[in-house]
Amino acid sequence: MTLQEFINYLNIESQHTSDIEITGLNTLQDATSSQISFLENKKYTHELEKTNAGAVLVTQELAHLVPKNCIALITPEPYLKLAYASKLFAPNVVETEGKEPEIGENTTIMPHVYVGKDSVIGKNCTIMSGAYIADNVHIGDNTLIYPNVTVYRDCTIGNDCIIHAGTVIGSDGFGFAHTKEGKYIKIYQNGNVVIGNDVELGSNTSIDRAAFNSTIIGNGVRIDNLVHIAHNCILKDGCILTGQVGLSGSTTLHEYVIMGGQSATAGHLEIAPFTTIAARGGVTKTISEPKKQWAGFPLMEHRVWLKLQGRIAKLLK
Amino acid sequence: MTLQEFINYLNIESQHTSDIEITGLNTLQDATSSQISFLENKKYTHELEKTNAGAVLVTQELAHLVPKNCIALITPEPYLKLAYASKLFAPNVVETEGKEPEIGENTTIMPHVYVGKDSVIGKNCTIMSGAYIADNVHIGDNTLIYPNVTVYRDCTIGNDCIIHAGTVIGSDGFGFAHTKEGKYIKIYQNGNVVIGNDVELGSNTSIDRAAFNSTIIGNGVRIDNLVHIAHNCILKDGCILTGQVGLSGSTTLHEYVIMGGQSATAGHLEIAPFTTIAARGGVTKTISEPKKQWAGFPLMEHRVWLKLQGRIAKLLK
Amino acid sequence: MTLQEFINYLNIESQHTSDIEITGLNTLQDATSSQISFLENKKYTHELEKTNAGAVLVTQELAHLVPKNCIALITPEPYLKLAYASKLFAPNVVETEGKEPEIGENTTIMPHVYVGKDSVIGKNCTIMSGAYIADNVHIGDNTLIYPNVTVYRDCTIGNDCIIHAGTVIGSDGFGFAHTKEGKYIKIYQNGNVVIGNDVELGSNTSIDRAAFNSTIIGNGVRIDNLVHIAHNCILKDGCILTGQVGLSGSTTLHEYVIMGGQSATAGHLEIAPFTTIAARGGVTKTISEPKKQWAGFPLMEHRVWLKLQGRIAKLLK
Repeated sequence: MTLQEFINYLNIESQHTSDIEITGLNTLQDATSSQISFLENKKYTHELEKTNAGAVLVTQELAHLVPKNCIALITPEPYLKLAYASKLFAPNVVETEGKEPEIGENTTIMPHVYVGKDSVIGKNCTIMSGAYIADNVHIGDNTLIYPNVTVYRDCTIGNDCIIHAGTVIGSDGFGFAHTKEGKYIKIYQNGNVVIGNDVELGSNTSIDRAAFNSTIIGNGVRIDNLVHIAHNCILKDGCILTGQVGLSGSTTLHEYVIMGGQSATAGHLEIAPFTTIAARGGVTKTISEPKKQWAGFPLMEHRVWLKLQGRIAKLLK
Repeated sequence: MTLQEFINYLNIESQHTSDIEITGLNTLQDATSSQISFLENKKYTHELEKTNAGAVLVTQELAHLVPKNCIALITPEPYLKLAYASKLFAPNVVETEGKEPEIGENTTIMPHVYVGKDSVIGKNCTIMSGAYIADNVHIGDNTLIYPNVTVYRDCTIGNDCIIHAGTVIGSDGFGFAHTKEGKYIKIYQNGNVVIGNDVELGSNTSIDRAAFNSTIIGNGVRIDNLVHIAHNCILKDGCILTGQVGLSGSTTLHEYVIMGGQSATAGHLEIAPFTTIAARGGVTKTISEPKKQWAGFPLMEHRVWLKLQGRIAKLLK
Repeated sequence: MTLQEFINYLNIESQHTSDIEITGLNTLQDATSSQISFLENKKYTHELEKTNAGAVLVTQELAHLVPKNCIALITPEPYLKLAYASKLFAPNVVETEGKEPEIGENTTIMPHVYVGKDSVIGKNCTIMSGAYIADNVHIGDNTLIYPNVTVYRDCTIGNDCIIHAGTVIGSDGFGFAHTKEGKYIKIYQNGNVVIGNDVELGSNTSIDRAAFNSTIIGNGVRIDNLVHIAHNCILKDGCILTGQVGLSGSTTLHEYVIMGGQSATAGHLEIAPFTTIAARGGVTKTISEPKKQWAGFPLMEHRVWLKLQGRIAKLLK
């Protein structure tokens, strides 16, 4: 679609007429010249100035910050317009056209399995009954998918992975704008999930696809049961998440972060390499210093938390 | 079944002989003259006085409060008797008789899907592989059911809904009485789940059916992954539950309540419209005043919680 | 495989040559003379002295404690060697040989169900669509398995059980050693799950199989939705776990323990009979005295927790 068609669809007034071909939406940081981005939260103004987006949905107030070579699409509600626009780029939920899936040598597809169009499964895999492998999914070699796993379209899983039963890879991230009347408008989650090699995921775990780009699970990651990973999280190599951990959107765990049972993050933050979060720890801010141990909610160093519990216990005396 | 047959089945001594036709069980508040209710917890005595139930299982001690036009069924263990009685009214888990399902125009039913007897699915829906749509389920138009979703019998889902993979709608509420010997007797959950229009449910979420009547999810509600909603909860329009929230039984969320990640409620309480519960907040009492922000466990106003954390931090000095 | 072959496989230097037939791995406590055990953590040294294992993977430092009749297999990394060894004894994920399953009288197997080799299902059961019953699974009489449940190989379920949709029984416990280079080596979970009679499990719950021996769910247990039970937990008769409870590995709940919503345990501990853990309680140590009520994290007696909350509230004044 051209930028002009895009503008017309969203009912935006614009002095520009443009036949630039628009291929999708993206963040200010990652957008290319054929993509459209948005800015509503002033916190991200610094990203606007450096964006390579072809056009940006932006309020009148911030429009003067839009860089040259980027077209300002002025609207009082950039985020809401983004939500409406996201539908334009949403692929089909199920493809009926496309190539039959490619299944590698020595791979077993058990009964009651669905494998979608254009999907590729490597060698020596086992895809067990009730698994759903959507369209355009790529799975490496020697990977084992247990029963009733769902892999949404466009996701990729590496070699030597084990995905336990009932786990969902690629469900939509929890994203929506709202109208003045309080109606929620879905932000279609047009990204995917990319899982590295030698990853094991427990049962009944949920990993959401990205709004844009990818939710990423690095090599060697181990994730336990009933873990919630929201959209656009990045887990670098060797991270360990134990049972019932919850990661909010856009959490980045650097290498070898360990999170104890029921611990969680608030999202839009990073955790330094080799950090340990104790069970129930609640991370609300970026942790920059590596190799430390944290606990509690609000979060503090684990040794401080232990000391604090001692002080709190004294209140009883 | 007649009231007399009911009395005989439960081995209750009664002076009444009655051929009133009994159609089911219900709460004191909602029971009609063809239904039987119960009272064990004195806390609900005020509801007994106003009940329209045809008969009530009640202890000798409280029997004098049973209103006229309502028959007292006296037993030392009303709740246990209710549990035994609930089995009498439990429908078949799977129907073998009944009409073939009605599938609307332009609706896609993918392979490996089961749709039960007497179920009706609207137009332009997609029911993806591995979904189980039980008997007498009603689904509106334009609704998308992702793979491996289970919808139990008698539940209804509105128009324009999206239900992500692995989610379960209508599993039994967690209800049982116990005998003196410590055996748990199941209270058959004979109600259902009713989901409004424009609702999106994340993946691997569980919504239990009501013991009596309905667990209700209002229009426009958004629910994230791995959320637990117990029996007889009511979520009014526009509520938002983020990842891993847990609602205990008979929680009522009024319009536009927002609950942060891993927050929870203790059940049998109400939360006023436009309330926000911060992540990890634990609600143990009704919140009557609308539009406030709460946090912590025990719960307090969010600004108080922040202040408290400051005071607690001072203990370390 | 002979002990000698085992030693060769793991590249262990050993003065012993032995053609003892090795049948598997086990803990120091439970190993028999045809099994191999391991000791890395000095905390368990007392178990070494009493072991009946045929051989033990052990460090040089602790080798002198290995009892007579037990062969010391000396290695600087006993736990890592155990991990490598566990793969030797892992059964096939899916059997292609074996007897066709035995299905009892009056049992209904709905469409889209898989039942594996050598499995036995009793009378009057209903196995609903999308359920996966793996190889060598034994299910008693009158048991109801809802849709999209997965039961992994070698697990057993008793009579009169109800397993709600999406629940997973027997997924791998979360176990791995790591190499010096930080690569995680899976400890194959060669045990199973054994579920007693009259057990009800909610929807989307996960129960992991044991590393060795069995994860055990006793008779009459009631488990709610989205509960996580790690490997080698033992729940004795009559325990109740409400929504989103999490049990870490090797937790033993004695009879009639009740755990409130989102409560959890740290693993490798026991909870005395008739204990109640309030919602959100976090159990980090063994509770020896029965019939008490506990709350909080760190855990304390419930009445103390209430008092403490009062004291904490005073900090605001």
